Amino acid sequence: MKKIGFIGLGNMGRPMAGNLLKANYEVAVYDILPEAMKPLTEVGGIACNNAREVISGADVVISMLPASQQVESLYLGDEGIMPTIDPSSLVIDCSTISPAISRKVAGAAQARGIAMLDAPVSGGVGGAVAGSLTFIVGGQETDLDKARSILESMGSNIFHAGAAGAGQVAKICNNMLLSVLMSGTAEALQLGVNNGLDAKVLSEIMRKSSGANWALEVYNPYPGVMENVPAANNYDGGFLVDLMIKDLGLAMESALATESSIPLGALARNLYRLHGSKGAGDKDFSSIQTLFTDK
Amino acid sequence: MKKIGFIGLGNMGRPMAGNLLKANYEVAVYDILPEAMKPLTEVGGIACNNAREVISGADVVISMLPASQQVESLYLGDEGIMPTIDPSSLVIDCSTISPAISRKVAGAAQARGIAMLDAPVSGGVGGAVAGSLTFIVGGQETDLDKARSILESMGSNIFHAGAAGAGQVAKICNNMLLSVLMSGTAEALQLGVNNGLDAKVLSEIMRKSSGANWALEVYNPYPGVMENVPAANNYDGGFLVDLMIKDLGLAMESALATESSIPLGALARNLYRLHGSKGAGDKDFSSIQTLFTDK
Amino acid sequence: MKKIGFIGLGNMGRPMAGNLLKANYEVAVYDILPEAMKPLTEVGGIACNNAREVISGADVVISMLPASQQVESLYLGDEGIMPTIDPSSLVIDCSTISPAISRKVAGAAQARGIAMLDAPVSGGVGGAVAGSLTFIVGGQETDLDKARSILESMGSNIFHAGAAGAGQVAKICNNMLLSVLMSGTAEALQLGVNNGLDAKVLSEIMRKSSGANWALEVYNPYPGVMENVPAANNYDGGFLVDLMIKDLGLAMESALATESSIPLGALARNLYRLHGSKGAGDKDFSSIQTLFTDK
Amino acid sequence: MKKIGFIGLGNMGRPMAGNLLKANYEVAVYDILPEAMKPLTEVGGIACNNAREVISGADVVISMLPASQQVESLYLGDEGIMPTIDPSSLVIDCSTISPAISRKVAGAAQARGIAMLDAPVSGGVGGAVAGSLTFIVGGQETDLDKARSILESMGSNIFHAGAAGAGQVAKICNNMLLSVLMSGTAEALQLGVNNGLDAKVLSEIMRKSSGANWALEVYNPYPGVMENVPAANNYDGGFLVDLMIKDLGLAMESALATESSIPLGALARNLYRLHGSKGAGDKDFSSIQTLFTDK
Repeated sequence: MKKIGFIGLGNMGRPMAGNLLKANYEVAVYDILPEAMKPLTEVGGIACNNAREVISGADVVISMLPASQQVESLYLGDEGIMPTIDPSSLVIDCSTISPAISRKVAGAAQARGIAMLDAPVSGGVGGAVAGSLTFIVGGQETDLDKARSILESMGSNIFHAGAAGAGQVAKICNNMLLSVLMSGTAEALQLGVNNGLDAKVLSEIMRKSSGANWALEVYNPYPGVMENVPAANNYDGGFLVDLMIKDLGLAMESALATESSIPLGALARNLYRLHGSKGAGDKDFSSIQTLFTDK
Repeated sequence: MKKIGFIGLGNMGRPMAGNLLKANYEVAVYDILPEAMKPLTEVGGIACNNAREVISGADVVISMLPASQQVESLYLGDEGIMPTIDPSSLVIDCSTISPAISRKVAGAAQARGIAMLDAPVSGGVGGAVAGSLTFIVGGQETDLDKARSILESMGSNIFHAGAAGAGQVAKICNNMLLSVLMSGTAEALQLGVNNGLDAKVLSEIMRKSSGANWALEVYNPYPGVMENVPAANNYDGGFLVDLMIKDLGLAMESALATESSIPLGALARNLYRLHGSKGAGDKDFSSIQTLFTDK
Repeated sequence: MKKIGFIGLGNMGRPMAGNLLKANYEVAVYDILPEAMKPLTEVGGIACNNAREVISGADVVISMLPASQQVESLYLGDEGIMPTIDPSSLVIDCSTISPAISRKVAGAAQARGIAMLDAPVSGGVGGAVAGSLTFIVGGQETDLDKARSILESMGSNIFHAGAAGAGQVAKICNNMLLSVLMSGTAEALQLGVNNGLDAKVLSEIMRKSSGANWALEVYNPYPGVMENVPAANNYDGGFLVDLMIKDLGLAMESALATESSIPLGALARNLYRLHGSKGAGDKDFSSIQTLFTDK
Repeated sequence: MKKIGFIGLGNMGRPMAGNLLKANYEVAVYDILPEAMKPLTEVGGIACNNAREVISGADVVISMLPASQQVESLYLGDEGIMPTIDPSSLVIDCSTISPAISRKVAGAAQARGIAMLDAPVSGGVGGAVAGSLTFIVGGQETDLDKARSILESMGSNIFHAGAAGAGQVAKICNNMLLSVLMSGTAEALQLGVNNGLDAKVLSEIMRKSSGANWALEVYNPYPGVMENVPAANNYDGGFLVDLMIKDLGLAMESALATESSIPLGALARNLYRLHGSKGAGDKDFSSIQTLFTDK
């Protein structure tokens, strides 16, 4: 049986590690907040005192951290674990971070002969709990093959996006496009309503026409059109505006680094930031609908 | 058998009238360009000398004209036909025009007791020829019921959007959203490619994720990803940039009239116009992809 | 002494007509709201019962109305005055309206041999009261020469923009640019402040550098930088957000009519509309600063 | 007499060092390209073999490098000079770089007790040659006082923006605003021209009205309005599009780092990038005018 060292037990990491335990992996866990480890030790996880301890004897190291700087620090910082990871280990970073940092860490892994994947997820806390996350993976195909059964314990879709860092790039591109779809759908619905249409009727027409997109299909932002979506629940829960702003920041950075033009993505980022600055940061991102409504 | 008077035989109107003849309707036709009538008289259409003649004795009047001013002029101008249409007729305007003008004409019809529908189409010339158009209809449900079998001779999807003008509003909202989806998809694909991803791999990942939309599903703008789309054919054919600009103009007008905010739609309109101003007006609208490519 | 008929006595028209009275013109006035005439009759104005009465015997007809439809109705409607204006009169429309309607009315005037100018103003209520308005005039130079002394009774700057309608176009272009300057200045100041700079120091540096513009010079939107501007007074008074939105709507219409690309103007229009939709419609337009501030 | 060590002799650094020699300073120079030093050794400059040599015995160290990474490398890299700079020296970095890196280098200087200023310039190559640059300075006021006479040998305006890094922030804010002014002016002029106005007449009206800004005052982007500007010379020379894109990239980074909304700046960045991607990268930035012209 494989031994897994899991670092980072926030809202996402905790249920992910829990699903590994359910799948009968031996899982050592570590988080800078000791209380974050407790729910896992109760179900068989082994709490560690620091990151170096958690990787000791691990066949697989998994990290799930908030942002680029924590990942860089974990692996490459003064107390970084990269130098002490066993070269036969497989390292999987599930954090959503800058492709540049992701490639930097992967490069350091490669220099020591360590197999490393970037495997950011989509699906949110709900998907993490249900074990139905989507993993978008960058790295060698052969390394992904080794990781597959582990990832399948936590998720239901696994995409191979390309070489190291490609998982981050694909996720960033997807989420930038998602922000554009969602904002564009919201303003189109409001334009229709302002011109006398029923939001439900208009949604159905566009969903079956060339305006079809994920938001209209499963995540309609207009209240009253769908049940069981954040719009039906005061935009509570779901994928938070502040997290979308974070991902859009990564998209902007990637666009700057490659001199890409992203006019709609950049506008969506600024609209989301305006929205967040007025108190909507902890609402679901479909609440962008309310930006287009008269107060 | 119903007699139909059909006015406006351009790239769309000609095949639409042709499909009515195939369905064995008696069809009188008129266009200001006499040569436009010829292909139809060869297959049984009856050419007329003017619009008044074409509506004489017609049970159903159908118009398919380029823009608001032609529709207003046809029905309400100095030589307009509204006063001479038989009150028992059903009038169907398939042109894509301003909802305000559409409602104005419908109001004049109503004042004379004439049943009128606005029924703009999507599906382009290909759909018109194949008889697979989508009709987005505004007007009374009972009038739509009367029109249904006729519309089904020309199309395969019929949506009822609401009262008079609602067909125009729904089409405009859909096409505004479509312009945002297409531009957003194009810039996301280019961002990925600029960061080292393969356009086909990235398209597939986003198509199965929350970035899913009509463009990724059936009309990918990046060359080499799909066959049988304009991107595979130098962006020839399809839905022209200049027609998208026209529809976006109608969306802008509707937003101004209702004081709606449409930041993404407005940006897409201006990007399409910049694109068109550099010589792409008669290319397919997915050619917006090339705006994001280095020359 | 010239006799002037003045139509439209709102916040702008009333003090403008008052300044003509101060300059000893004989002024007949009319407004659909009788009480609007009272302050003027108290200082020598002659109240009339309708627009036809006010132009009777007038050497000069001046109108100052809210929007295109009122101007079109006044001159060309069913009860319109154009047919009864004395052909020797000079007509000056000071309303800010669509260039298309302005040209239409001017064309009708020309057909009757009447000299007509479009002369929209800038300077706001303060300028109207002080007699320091700026007039931006379209029409024949010779007609402007005849109007000059009258305009100088109400304003201090007179520009000749070109033929009929050109006054409207120039004002619309100026105000679109102004909206971009103001929003751009506001976001640059906030970016600086968010990065630790003092708004006053940054304002002074940019004012003396290539970022120099009217907003930094006389109308700084950041509270605490200047005295005697709306930003120093809770953004009360000044040039209202709703009026800027109206002018930006005219700019959008002109861009659509001429297929012009105006990406920044369109974005500014949508930002102002978002701002207005959250309750800022009756604040000064420099309050766009608050859109960039955290709540 | 003070001894100055000058590092970085590109299009800007070379004439700046030349002006210091003209002012009779003793100037040691270094550039990674030996031939860049030649024009200066011919007029009294002392060529050095590396950066460490150039600072040896210098009272003042000045650097003028292309971007953040070169500055970070020069001072803090493996071969970095910070550890060997004499603590009694004054260090002035005139490069335009990220405020974050600027603060990082200044922090390292402070740790060694070295006085350091960030002093990015505006005025371009012309200003560097003429000795009329503007310096926007971050750092301690007392250190700026020591630097003043040296800066005055190279420039005519000196602004103190605030603490370390503030010079960078102020320059970035100014140039972001400048990009918005220039693009906004260009689209307003084109909108006027498309509506029949003369660009010169419209420019003059807006210059004297609330649309007044630096572009209209001294750098009109529309060909034929002003002499002796890049627009009069096929947009050759001046401040290059690619340099504006670089500065806008720094502005975007600062906005991301501080979670600021900069919708207009972000749009201007993307418009400039679209413009540059079509071959205009080495044209003056006022060539954005041509983005709005039909091809």
